[in-house]
Amino acid sequence: MSDEASQQARPATADDVARLAGVSRSAVSRTFTKGASVSPATRDKVLEAAATLGYRVNFLARSLSMQRTNLVAMVVSDMDHSLRALLVDRLARNLVAHDFRPFLLPWSTGDEVGRLTDMMLHYNVSGAIVTSDTPPKAIAAECARHNVPLVLVEKAPIGGRVGSVGHDHEKAGRLAAEELYRSGCRRIAYAAQHRPSHSIGERRRAFEQTAAELGITISHRFYGARQNYDGGLEAAEAFWAVSPSVDGFYCANDFLALGFMDGLRRRENIRFPDDFSLVASDDIPEASWSSYDITTVRQNPDHVAEATLEALITCMKPDGSVPETQKIDVELVRRSTTKT
Amino acid sequence: MSDEASQQARPATADDVARLAGVSRSAVSRTFTKGASVSPATRDKVLEAAATLGYRVNFLARSLSMQRTNLVAMVVSDMDHSLRALLVDRLARNLVAHDFRPFLLPWSTGDEVGRLTDMMLHYNVSGAIVTSDTPPKAIAAECARHNVPLVLVEKAPIGGRVGSVGHDHEKAGRLAAEELYRSGCRRIAYAAQHRPSHSIGERRRAFEQTAAELGITISHRFYGARQNYDGGLEAAEAFWAVSPSVDGFYCANDFLALGFMDGLRRRENIRFPDDFSLVASDDIPEASWSSYDITTVRQNPDHVAEATLEALITCMKPDGSVPETQKIDVELVRRSTTKT
Repeated sequence: MSDEASQQARPATADDVARLAGVSRSAVSRTFTKGASVSPATRDKVLEAAATLGYRVNFLARSLSMQRTNLVAMVVSDMDHSLRALLVDRLARNLVAHDFRPFLLPWSTGDEVGRLTDMMLHYNVSGAIVTSDTPPKAIAAECARHNVPLVLVEKAPIGGRVGSVGHDHEKAGRLAAEELYRSGCRRIAYAAQHRPSHSIGERRRAFEQTAAELGITISHRFYGARQNYDGGLEAAEAFWAVSPSVDGFYCANDFLALGFMDGLRRRENIRFPDDFSLVASDDIPEASWSSYDITTVRQNPDHVAEATLEALITCMKPDGSVPETQKIDVELVRRSTTKT
Repeated sequence: MSDEASQQARPATADDVARLAGVSRSAVSRTFTKGASVSPATRDKVLEAAATLGYRVNFLARSLSMQRTNLVAMVVSDMDHSLRALLVDRLARNLVAHDFRPFLLPWSTGDEVGRLTDMMLHYNVSGAIVTSDTPPKAIAAECARHNVPLVLVEKAPIGGRVGSVGHDHEKAGRLAAEELYRSGCRRIAYAAQHRPSHSIGERRRAFEQTAAELGITISHRFYGARQNYDGGLEAAEAFWAVSPSVDGFYCANDFLALGFMDGLRRRENIRFPDDFSLVASDDIPEASWSSYDITTVRQNPDHVAEATLEALITCMKPDGSVPETQKIDVELVRRSTTKT
């Protein structure tokens, strides 16, 4: 807190209102309590004094006396990824609809976990949702120690009472391999970011297994630094450096696929699916833009947000309920990068 | 709050820790107060008991006793817009760096303003930042009445002690008109969403004035429902329905320009800048993607986030300081949609 900010004027208290209205402290309290009895004349005096002083009921103090704040920490990163931003929006809306209050904690790789958990715990949060690449075990240990219900989104389940919600990435990998097979591919290249996330690892393993079963060879792997547009451009540069003879691509996610397609087309007049088939994953809004029109495997952020709230509420039960790991269904969306 | 959630187990209190450690309540308090005196032996007993019980200092209760929570409400909408998501991320990081805590309040057109202000005021927020299309006057009136410092981002300044931060949209409109002129345009069409925001209205007025001075005719205006990709596709359909003879376009913002370009190219093999010049505004990441490569006027979300924090801290001063309206500078970014 900066020095200037700490000098903020003291807000009016119920005592101030009572004094100005010329009524008892209890009359003020009753005026602002749903269903409590208070005479119309007293009520009017209190409301007028409250308006004059800018008094408001301190709901947070009430919550504290019940040892609950209803604040839920959302640990997020990569807001430049449209799917992540959409998920944050959906989670916040679901939290508000359940009378929780979303408390946003931005996270960057390299930030100190202790600082993050301190911020959560100092505010006595009622729960936490981790969607970022934050080390989940360190956070989970702190949350368990302090009895803070925790749900991990799109991360490896870690057991205990920690909720876990994510898409069915195995199915996503399988659907992608089957679609490339149907599009005529028998020898393909894989494009992804260097450091795979949990979900991308799951997809890749299922893709590789299905590809092997169908007789598709994965002859090359090309990488970019991050799972975004620039990462895709870098993977395309790596492709051009080798220029292998392949008939298709599996991109670990749409965001990277956008840059990969542009990186291929920037060098030569490449056409999809005539020159190469391509399948990616996520179905972010940009995947449907007509400059890309990518065949992909659709995720459902609305379902993830709903399942996350459900898991969080289960974790909050005093009976020790353990939330089931939720796998959200995915589906193939056929567009113009495959011949099917 | 759902019924299940309200039954959460009671967290350990300082009294519980004192009892288990066999020390006084005051010894517990001193252990967790920076600089307070406590013997090493007592300290160790307290820390061990606190760890066993999962006790944490209730920072929020401490803040309340000082009548400050450090929570700052961020009222946001349109998280599907990459520039908005980026701004939310930057604001959250700046708030955390200043020891504030960002409290995310999603807003949709049609939501009740009273419900929104109730959520803010019930949590005794230390301040509020409005970035959405929320009716600002209704929020400002409530914040003023309750002594909550308020900063509006990219909205019309409303005076009083309400902070106001936004880009120099007049300059953005002027730069766009000058660039189209230099690109050889003399008769252009304007593409935008139906209901202009404050910033888009400012840009358009400055654009029209500069265009008139330079002798550029704005012969047609085409609209889409929203300022996004789909809105751009709709504006392009409206263009094709008339097919007027123009040599360029001014798009109100990049997000709409992406759809507008694709909507034009979907029908015919249109090439920029050979067939038409195009200038937009914002410089969202997608504008630089090689499928678009749009000449645009760059905004700076980092500067907006910094100026917003500065204005908020000024609004918090007890001396009645009035923050100056901040205009963040913009600059032309030349890419391949103009012949310059």
